[in-house]
Amino acid sequence: MVNPTSPVTRVLVFGAHLAWVVPTLFRMSTALMTDHYELTMLRAALRSGAAHRRVVFEVFTRALPPGRRFGVFAGTGRLLAALADFRFGPDEIGALLAAGTVDDATAAWLADYRFRGEISAFAEGEPFFAGAPVLVVEGTFAESVLLETLVLSILNHDSAIAAAAARMVAAAGERPCIEMGTRRTHEAAAIAAARAAYLAGFTASSNLAAARAYAVPSVGTSAHAFTLVHPSEADAFAAQVAALGADTTLLVDTYDVTAGIAAAVAAAGPQLGAIRIDSGDLGALALAGRAQLDALGATDTRIIATGDLDEHAVARLAGAPVDGYGIGTSLVTGSGAPTAGFVYKLVAVDGEPVAKRSVGKGTRGGRKRVLRRHDPAGRAVADVVLPAGVPGDPHPARVEGGASRDRELLVRVMTGGELADEGLIGPAGTRRAREHHALALATLGPAARDVRFGQPCLPVVHAARP
Amino acid sequence: MVNPTSPVTRVLVFGAHLAWVVPTLFRMSTALMTDHYELTMLRAALRSGAAHRRVVFEVFTRALPPGRRFGVFAGTGRLLAALADFRFGPDEIGALLAAGTVDDATAAWLADYRFRGEISAFAEGEPFFAGAPVLVVEGTFAESVLLETLVLSILNHDSAIAAAAARMVAAAGERPCIEMGTRRTHEAAAIAAARAAYLAGFTASSNLAAARAYAVPSVGTSAHAFTLVHPSEADAFAAQVAALGADTTLLVDTYDVTAGIAAAVAAAGPQLGAIRIDSGDLGALALAGRAQLDALGATDTRIIATGDLDEHAVARLAGAPVDGYGIGTSLVTGSGAPTAGFVYKLVAVDGEPVAKRSVGKGTRGGRKRVLRRHDPAGRAVADVVLPAGVPGDPHPARVEGGASRDRELLVRVMTGGELADEGLIGPAGTRRAREHHALALATLGPAARDVRFGQPCLPVVHAARP
Repeated sequence: MVNPTSPVTRVLVFGAHLAWVVPTLFRMSTALMTDHYELTMLRAALRSGAAHRRVVFEVFTRALPPGRRFGVFAGTGRLLAALADFRFGPDEIGALLAAGTVDDATAAWLADYRFRGEISAFAEGEPFFAGAPVLVVEGTFAESVLLETLVLSILNHDSAIAAAAARMVAAAGERPCIEMGTRRTHEAAAIAAARAAYLAGFTASSNLAAARAYAVPSVGTSAHAFTLVHPSEADAFAAQVAALGADTTLLVDTYDVTAGIAAAVAAAGPQLGAIRIDSGDLGALALAGRAQLDALGATDTRIIATGDLDEHAVARLAGAPVDGYGIGTSLVTGSGAPTAGFVYKLVAVDGEPVAKRSVGKGTRGGRKRVLRRHDPAGRAVADVVLPAGVPGDPHPARVEGGASRDRELLVRVMTGGELADEGLIGPAGTRRAREHHALALATLGPAARDVRFGQPCLPVVHAARP
Repeated sequence: MVNPTSPVTRVLVFGAHLAWVVPTLFRMSTALMTDHYELTMLRAALRSGAAHRRVVFEVFTRALPPGRRFGVFAGTGRLLAALADFRFGPDEIGALLAAGTVDDATAAWLADYRFRGEISAFAEGEPFFAGAPVLVVEGTFAESVLLETLVLSILNHDSAIAAAAARMVAAAGERPCIEMGTRRTHEAAAIAAARAAYLAGFTASSNLAAARAYAVPSVGTSAHAFTLVHPSEADAFAAQVAALGADTTLLVDTYDVTAGIAAAVAAAGPQLGAIRIDSGDLGALALAGRAQLDALGATDTRIIATGDLDEHAVARLAGAPVDGYGIGTSLVTGSGAPTAGFVYKLVAVDGEPVAKRSVGKGTRGGRKRVLRRHDPAGRAVADVVLPAGVPGDPHPARVEGGASRDRELLVRVMTGGELADEGLIGPAGTRRAREHHALALATLGPAARDVRFGQPCLPVVHAARP
């Protein structure tokens, strides 16, 4: 179909080569990653004139998942990158016109569109609680309403995974957790899940695309198929050690764990890096495996437990001689809470608060600020939500307890549609989120590390302006 | 940063324009959407020689999610498209070498790699049950093991959503279901979810990218924000009707449903297309709303119910005067089962069966066939799994009950790495899967339409070769 010697092909190949070198110049638009009704609202609002009103949208959740102590705000870095590509090109506009979704006036408006407003957000990695806005979008109704679906998709997914990951990390204590869930979720969601797990404290991931995109350390050695494709387990282990060195991890449960451990140490010697056990009673097998390894002189060989683990299974293994956990399905599906429940609600129009009164889904009008209040020892004691006054109010309201121990949680990340800081995206943003998460979590106290069903570990207080 | 008049910029702009026109030529590689260990296994197997053995991998699930009557096999169309892009270019290989994941010999092998083997699969949309292989990959160990993670990511995600969607469609009976979950899942997973829901019987989706990529019909009108941004509900409704016509759907629960319905009919007249109710007691509100609409002469105006619906809520609304359902969160999270539980297991090496014996995770060796057996009335009675003999065996084994009423479920979709039929991918593949699903589901009988917790509605029989 393609003639490799034609001039057109050479240009295409040149273009494809540039796409490797400068992929950001060939990014695909994210503009159709949205709901049909965002476009019909735009169309009707352009006609009514409401499109040009100055508005404030806030993102918040009405409740944490049942029993959860805290949420973890994640996805900002991915969202800010996706917003840069939220542009309607000829392809997108043509599709919308052909389907009758938009009219010519709306199409013309979309061709010039990029978001030019303001976004403030919690730091990525920040623990959050129900009822406090975690992200605020300010701009015209038209430019802001279009972002709703993409904002929610990214934040709801990434925050759900990060919150589950934080619980697993808490249950694991000092032992490392490795993310292995790529095969249990959508292939692109898997990349975001690896990133979210890493920022919430996982040490590595199996996902190679996450390593490439976000510098998440990737790890992995072999599966049962590798053992099965060789004539014997001993042959497989010898082949793996020959290629990857004695410091590798050998998977010992393909046939019989005791025989597998003996074969593993025979193949690699007592310098064997680790064994992995993926089935059976992991606690009992780890105990027996540790004794067997020690008896064979492999006293530094670690034991990695994998296979249907979640935070509760990890907690039950705390007393077993396990040196690390590989966690898949439960992590990438949010451990029972696969979406964070964020909504994107209009709270102000032309400076005036607005709110809906839908049963069970009412909203609080007006733009807000959120302060995390700490006691003199630095422990967080409450998140205080208070009116923000006019947009961009440079004078933070005073809060009882001393402003010096309050931390303003909503921080500007986009001004006039421009990224406030390139360090918020890519590998740098991921690393920064991981560091922030660890620091902020440490202020929450021991209840945050309890993975049993319980109450949120910090109250949210809705304060009137003092 | 970019000078728009420079030759380089003009080439880039030309390339970007081509990217709109011929996006398939600028497709991104999917090769890093995989687990680290697939590459280390390849590296070790190239060194040991096992890489070149002829193998068979089978995809199956050990169990359906608790209480489910059947699964729905989905994702083939997306998988076959992704496999075409599963190539290691300079960017991917450079990243793998830099990270030390592969050595030079492996890198050289990857540069020439594309899958050249055979894939057989259930028809997309086919109901499936635990223990029967739904997809079979045949090739060398090296070329086949590399596909594991991508195959599982796509099939596990799409099949989980399709299975949940089929239950909602069953509960809705003749009433249409609209997919609205984009904001509750990863932004790319949302596109696949809309596709999976459509093939399992949903009539439309809110997702514009799914409309573009797979011709899933997209729908949508307005959210509460549209009402709130206007001075009054009446103004908002008038604006929407002016832009979208009287046949639109007006959202009536922003303030008060009764007042909202009155305002809706006042704005659009009795020709109003539909009202949408998104909160409160949907059954009671639909009953009262129907009476109010009828009294206002809007007897053809439909009532659409949305808001935290799942198959059980839909079933409870069967007696209420609801004309359609919009379903979001529960659908895109698989209604409690967000991943299908498929595994990818080595079952044969150089023609000989292999199997692991891991506790609770044992496998059945040998390549298999699957026949769906029907009674004389055409109702499915069992899925029969039997040895396939040599790969490509042209003589189907005879099965008691008459071959004429047996349907071979595993069908070749890729031969020598080439797609068997272009109609399996894109919009055509999606439409075909939707048609196949409806036909195949009809043979399962009434138990398949029962959304209560229960047993699988068809047994899987493991038969020896007759």
